[in-house]
Amino acid sequence: MTAHAQAGTAAELALRNVPDTAATDLVRSARRAGIDVWFANPGTTEMPLVAALDEVDGVRPVLGLFEGVCTGAADGFARIAGRPAATLLHLGPGLANGLANLHNARRAGSPVVNVVGEHAAWHVGFDPPLASDVEGLARPMSVWVHTSRGPADLAADAARAVAAARELRGPATLVVPLDHQLATGAPVPDPAAGPPGAAPDPADAGPGAAPDPCGPGRAEPVDPGRVRGIARRIRTAARVVVLAGDGATGARARLTLARIAATGRIRVIGETFPAAVEHGGGLPGLPRLAYRPEAAAAELADAELVVLAGAREPVSYFGYPDLPARLAPPGSVLTLCSPGQDTGHALDLLADELGAPRNAPAVPAPAPPPPADGPLDPEIVAAVLARELPDRAIVSVEGGTCGYPFARLAGTAARHTMLTNTGGAIGQGLPVALGAAVADPGRPVIALQSDGGAHYTIQSLWTMARARLDVTVLIAANHRYGLLQTEADRICGSADGPATRELTALSPPRVDWVRLAESYGVPARRTRTAADLRDALGHSFHVTGPHLIEMEI
Amino acid sequence: MTAHAQAGTAAELALRNVPDTAATDLVRSARRAGIDVWFANPGTTEMPLVAALDEVDGVRPVLGLFEGVCTGAADGFARIAGRPAATLLHLGPGLANGLANLHNARRAGSPVVNVVGEHAAWHVGFDPPLASDVEGLARPMSVWVHTSRGPADLAADAARAVAAARELRGPATLVVPLDHQLATGAPVPDPAAGPPGAAPDPADAGPGAAPDPCGPGRAEPVDPGRVRGIARRIRTAARVVVLAGDGATGARARLTLARIAATGRIRVIGETFPAAVEHGGGLPGLPRLAYRPEAAAAELADAELVVLAGAREPVSYFGYPDLPARLAPPGSVLTLCSPGQDTGHALDLLADELGAPRNAPAVPAPAPPPPADGPLDPEIVAAVLARELPDRAIVSVEGGTCGYPFARLAGTAARHTMLTNTGGAIGQGLPVALGAAVADPGRPVIALQSDGGAHYTIQSLWTMARARLDVTVLIAANHRYGLLQTEADRICGSADGPATRELTALSPPRVDWVRLAESYGVPARRTRTAADLRDALGHSFHVTGPHLIEMEI
Repeated sequence: MTAHAQAGTAAELALRNVPDTAATDLVRSARRAGIDVWFANPGTTEMPLVAALDEVDGVRPVLGLFEGVCTGAADGFARIAGRPAATLLHLGPGLANGLANLHNARRAGSPVVNVVGEHAAWHVGFDPPLASDVEGLARPMSVWVHTSRGPADLAADAARAVAAARELRGPATLVVPLDHQLATGAPVPDPAAGPPGAAPDPADAGPGAAPDPCGPGRAEPVDPGRVRGIARRIRTAARVVVLAGDGATGARARLTLARIAATGRIRVIGETFPAAVEHGGGLPGLPRLAYRPEAAAAELADAELVVLAGAREPVSYFGYPDLPARLAPPGSVLTLCSPGQDTGHALDLLADELGAPRNAPAVPAPAPPPPADGPLDPEIVAAVLARELPDRAIVSVEGGTCGYPFARLAGTAARHTMLTNTGGAIGQGLPVALGAAVADPGRPVIALQSDGGAHYTIQSLWTMARARLDVTVLIAANHRYGLLQTEADRICGSADGPATRELTALSPPRVDWVRLAESYGVPARRTRTAADLRDALGHSFHVTGPHLIEMEI
Repeated sequence: MTAHAQAGTAAELALRNVPDTAATDLVRSARRAGIDVWFANPGTTEMPLVAALDEVDGVRPVLGLFEGVCTGAADGFARIAGRPAATLLHLGPGLANGLANLHNARRAGSPVVNVVGEHAAWHVGFDPPLASDVEGLARPMSVWVHTSRGPADLAADAARAVAAARELRGPATLVVPLDHQLATGAPVPDPAAGPPGAAPDPADAGPGAAPDPCGPGRAEPVDPGRVRGIARRIRTAARVVVLAGDGATGARARLTLARIAATGRIRVIGETFPAAVEHGGGLPGLPRLAYRPEAAAAELADAELVVLAGAREPVSYFGYPDLPARLAPPGSVLTLCSPGQDTGHALDLLADELGAPRNAPAVPAPAPPPPADGPLDPEIVAAVLARELPDRAIVSVEGGTCGYPFARLAGTAARHTMLTNTGGAIGQGLPVALGAAVADPGRPVIALQSDGGAHYTIQSLWTMARARLDVTVLIAANHRYGLLQTEADRICGSADGPATRELTALSPPRVDWVRLAESYGVPARRTRTAADLRDALGHSFHVTGPHLIEMEI
């Protein structure tokens, strides 16, 4: 059997009169494994893959003008869709440009499939100008890396990459030489003899029997004995914190957490930077652990037990002199389940073991902040946004200036999904918002974005405009790296030196965000007061396509 | 002896009343080795290094809003200044964002010193969110990588990094944990007992004896026996091409090449993408080897000998089906000297061996193109620029749309230095122009830039505005990836498929380059005709600071 036989009807082939390439096998195999969106910034060595996107039905190419847009969008897509998108990147330098947001995706546990072109296998040894160590670049930010061995492997390689991204919960990187992509008539491997880890082909399974090709990888099971042991410890402890991480931030798990909290002496706290967390609409609140290590340690200081529910042990974001790395009291940490395990099930078991009430206690939704007025500041921005947020919105938050104030009020807003910067590589807020909007065009998306971080992947605006995505970009324009000014003072005792000022102030010149957005085809306006911001939000939520709102704070 | 004793006078120390950190030792040591510019995008883990830039005299911090701006600027700086600048980057993701332009710098043989912060050594093992394999990321694009072992090593490590960048001619990456930077009172190593490869400290040498700390690494010597052998082969060959690469593109070597060519049967051709090449002002011309492999092979096809003078053997940029990788005829290639060797000396020896005339033949400067008029197209852009170019300009060329036509006319222009994209990672044209302008503020700098490539490091405009650099950015706005449309057709037989069109067309929306430049503080205008362009160039060359000219072609 050749690729021809798999490609379509004889009539279709006769019409096109071109044999399918192995690149087409790859795209088609990825499609069967659930990949229907490709965030792409291709080059010469990816042209057969681009042509393959023309050949395979049901795949959508989305162009990014910079690779970090593509990888961040794939992360945002995965967080909302619960399944991977692909990126298509050009050789080592193209991959390199996407690595920072792959770092964030890896920390988020987001499945992402990177397909990276490589020079023809027979050519790369000549070390042409664009040659570099592609696998070496991929490895630090990938959970799986593979370079195809030949055209006959591309279909299986694609399936393995998708399976790896889902099962290992992170970026899987497949490197494909140009000559492998271009080959025609490659034998199609027998699915029954596929390599271990190949995604099952749902087309081969009967109705009802097909696993969901679009779901995340199956969560590892939870050990009931461990849950019982932890329940015993909790029953005899005076004060307990449950730290809610992966699998504990959705609506259902949150109700279970509320049942658990209702048994008394148990506080529930969320991780500082969750990949995705539900807030508002009367859902039980989930305060986040503080970012500053002193504050976080203080929150945990009186806990006899800190129970990790899909969370990692909390550690200081940076290693400061005279502060410990571990934030929980020594000996307090117990792991109920790890990221990637079935946290929801573990929490159900724990609630039952603790004899928690069957239903979560009815807690009145917290009051929304009063209508704000006057010149914008971060608190007012947060209050306005919390009041105006549409139901079922997605909020991509990058930067603390308005991000922390909004997080404190998120529980008072309409029901929404908040996406945060999981890995700390800035430049993820806009692409993640872009990818979320592609994943679910029916939901309004807001990017609550500090100005400094917006520059790294500013090209996201263009793709938002091209795809007419309903994204409202809120730029907190304070024209400085506020965090760094704080850190300079904290670590070095001063932020006043000329070099420190030069490297932490973003003016002069002040970036004109309205003009910048408009240059990329995104309508924009500037706001100075709460009333301005309310008007601008109302307008943006009302009309189609992206809008940018510069907030002078 | 402690760092205190090295830091300055007792009075100065008493005034500041803070002990120097090891970070200050690092910056001071780098300064002694010639590093006086730091292109920086720091984060929390680099704050002590930022504070150190406040403490050490004679160092200039330059902020980039994205790391690729910093690394590309350091490359441009090195090409013009002939010595390295430093970059200051934040952890693995910050380095990753700078890798694409480090790839180009490595291919250019440009010395660049990257200083990358790392989590405190005692903290990194806790795998905090921003942790990643920094050395692993650095290695593919660096000629030297080292993570400091302790605060006492930082001064010596900085000297080693500078020496490595210069001697190995590429990016040297030094990773420095936060706690090492912050330590005070570190013993200063005895320079006499410094590690192998440490740069000599010119302060320790007498007048006249000091090696130039600002010069490039010493070129490797040339073997006169090899030169004699090659001269013998040349004398008996019917047709010879000398391929002029590293060390053969400056004015002096070009006169030598003209002497050699004057002995007959010898054509001189330049590499396709030189790091820096002199053109115009009556200098003997240096046609570049064609980019397309068929054309390049045709240029070399009749050569009995292809003599490499600081050039690598020419190979096809990409590996195309049915085309060979090697462009020179089989068995024709002889290496006079390799990149990094003393090409100028080798050419002198060769000219003498060949009995070349003592002086280069007087060749009339090629006639400038006639005054162009009418709507802009790439040929007219090239003609206008060639006529209007100020003397001693620096032209950073990225993209072929106007780049190739201008290269063909460069010999007719006033004397200038052309910088090209050596590694093919796009997004280097603007940062290289920026770095060149920092390196020599007395020379006008022109970035002749295709629109697609400009987006990757568009943030360069802001730094040009902040530093008021005399850079004229010419954007060839054809709103498409022209090269990719050609390659899609060439490789896949068509560029008409919907996915191919989606991924190679840059409109809709059309980027408004005037607004984009203005948003970053760069005055801009749009041009449609030769007269528009002449006016805009005249204005830009006349006033201070950067200007952007969108060219509708």
